[in-house]
Amino acid sequence: MGRQAHRPTIKDVAALAGVSTAAVSKAVNRSGRISEETRRRVLAAADELGWSPSSAASALKNARTRTVALIVRRETDVLGSDPHFTELIDGVESELAPRGYGLLLHLTGAAGTGETEAYRRFAQEGRVDGFLLTESRIGDPRFALLRELGKPAVLLGKAACTDPVEQVVLPEPHAGVTGTVEHLVRLGHRRIAYVSGPDDRVHSAFRAAAFHEALAAAGLTAEVFPGDFTEHGAVRATEQLLARTPRPTAAVYANDSMAVCGMSTAQRLGVRVPQDLSVIGYDDLPLSRWVHPRLTTVDQCVKDAGASAARRLLQLCGEELPDRPLARAPRLVVRESTATAPPPD
Amino acid sequence: MGRQAHRPTIKDVAALAGVSTAAVSKAVNRSGRISEETRRRVLAAADELGWSPSSAASALKNARTRTVALIVRRETDVLGSDPHFTELIDGVESELAPRGYGLLLHLTGAAGTGETEAYRRFAQEGRVDGFLLTESRIGDPRFALLRELGKPAVLLGKAACTDPVEQVVLPEPHAGVTGTVEHLVRLGHRRIAYVSGPDDRVHSAFRAAAFHEALAAAGLTAEVFPGDFTEHGAVRATEQLLARTPRPTAAVYANDSMAVCGMSTAQRLGVRVPQDLSVIGYDDLPLSRWVHPRLTTVDQCVKDAGASAARRLLQLCGEELPDRPLARAPRLVVRESTATAPPPD
Repeated sequence: MGRQAHRPTIKDVAALAGVSTAAVSKAVNRSGRISEETRRRVLAAADELGWSPSSAASALKNARTRTVALIVRRETDVLGSDPHFTELIDGVESELAPRGYGLLLHLTGAAGTGETEAYRRFAQEGRVDGFLLTESRIGDPRFALLRELGKPAVLLGKAACTDPVEQVVLPEPHAGVTGTVEHLVRLGHRRIAYVSGPDDRVHSAFRAAAFHEALAAAGLTAEVFPGDFTEHGAVRATEQLLARTPRPTAAVYANDSMAVCGMSTAQRLGVRVPQDLSVIGYDDLPLSRWVHPRLTTVDQCVKDAGASAARRLLQLCGEELPDRPLARAPRLVVRESTATAPPPD
Repeated sequence: MGRQAHRPTIKDVAALAGVSTAAVSKAVNRSGRISEETRRRVLAAADELGWSPSSAASALKNARTRTVALIVRRETDVLGSDPHFTELIDGVESELAPRGYGLLLHLTGAAGTGETEAYRRFAQEGRVDGFLLTESRIGDPRFALLRELGKPAVLLGKAACTDPVEQVVLPEPHAGVTGTVEHLVRLGHRRIAYVSGPDDRVHSAFRAAAFHEALAAAGLTAEVFPGDFTEHGAVRATEQLLARTPRPTAAVYANDSMAVCGMSTAQRLGVRVPQDLSVIGYDDLPLSRWVHPRLTTVDQCVKDAGASAARRLLQLCGEELPDRPLARAPRLVVRESTATAPPPD
């Protein structure tokens, strides 16, 4: 990588491509009439010379920053320990990176301190082209805020029906949840516990509802124990459900991290998994394959959903791209943590 | 959050703060002579009115984007499954977020495809003020590149001695590794296996060297099995070490994810942890507390190191901040996966 005698200018690029500087400007800003062939030649010349327009200058001109924001509420116990997040980023970046887009990441305080301010500031300072939203909440204030700010936004996940969201990418949970219940019922389980997620999360409510519905279809009732996606919550819920008489023979957790904590809690108490207790998670994180026994869980295609949401946001930001629908619905992945229900005591 | 009749301007801010528009500009751009008291008054007025200067316009003026970049090589098997990453981001953001800085995240292809181009583009397009580097590699090309690009950079971790890095944050591994070996030797272990990390990583080399040194001090020799931070690598290395005769009574892994995979592999083969095999990880991820038995591991203060590195980078980007040294050196956290060595067969 040799150094150049002088910093390349727009004139050098124009000369090498055999066009006017105005044409270079058009090619770079995707504005005005210019043939695709010429555009490619200009970009090749710019690339060869290592020239790029100042992004600040071009942002002022065409109000495009080629940056999208992901603002996440930091709840130390959850995020710091949630491998889900890396999978998501991986999927999002698979669409952004090849197109030269950056992901501006921002964590706000627990309980959303500074959340509204962050959206407002990023939009008003013209730092991003759009927003990617995760973890839709009941009564989520962000949708109205984003309409006010006038920036494109895509929600990854499911919004409560009353939320006027503009774009939604839906990894519909029903298929996975129904599959979970059918699998357990087929194995002879009749007493099935459910350890839920935080109750202000829309996906928690949807998954819990789907779970109740599937159990009802089998003539069963769920025993619900509130979890909150933390280690402590999962351990406590598991201790509570194991103390019930008669004891549930299966425990379904709202995510894999809680399921792993729950499985270990049972083992620590001398309850064998899966012989005495079947355990099922949700997410299909790599972690679910690392433990012993390997976790039966719902593959909700986190990475794929992240990529779909990013693609949709790029479209809303003005990129001409074909749709990228989700490859498939969530589905149960049966591994080693589920087995035939033990006979009644 | 009522809507305003018109978009606030710099004049509105000046009027509310009782200063000239020039003073507002100085306060916002931290340029020129202006008292701290006046500056605070201006910022309060700007805040009250919801006014902020266009970041594109102010970036052009003072060449500050209040954005730092973190470019990570994506190796799907590793990153997608590495909870370490979330801890790191959490620490970095704890310093960036309160100061209005954003983190521009970019993943490049495995084997570093597009890595050099990404650094070059971010720097040349003026999109970031500086770079945060992780995972220093043997013969790392990034240090020379960054000197050429003339942007501040801070490496999180240890550089090979020959690398002319400008800033290094050092979570010195020796204390943790020495503690690991001392703990095992005290428990009577004499046959200790080491499952290493990828061999192009500087920290892998340093940790392995520290391990050999500590064992030599106890009159022992390590049996090394190459791992690569993947599930597959950890399983294979564990199967190999358990097949040795005489079998090692303790296995030390270069990270927690591999240690968890190794522990499960042993359990699956009927080898009890810790009665037959003591297992130790490195990182002290939340995951290490979730499994059964809970993992003995080295707390290397990932989050704290991320915060320190971010703080140092902010200083290099021109922020006036006091130093934030690491609170402590890595240390062994003894949990349930280590016990007295079994008697020889």
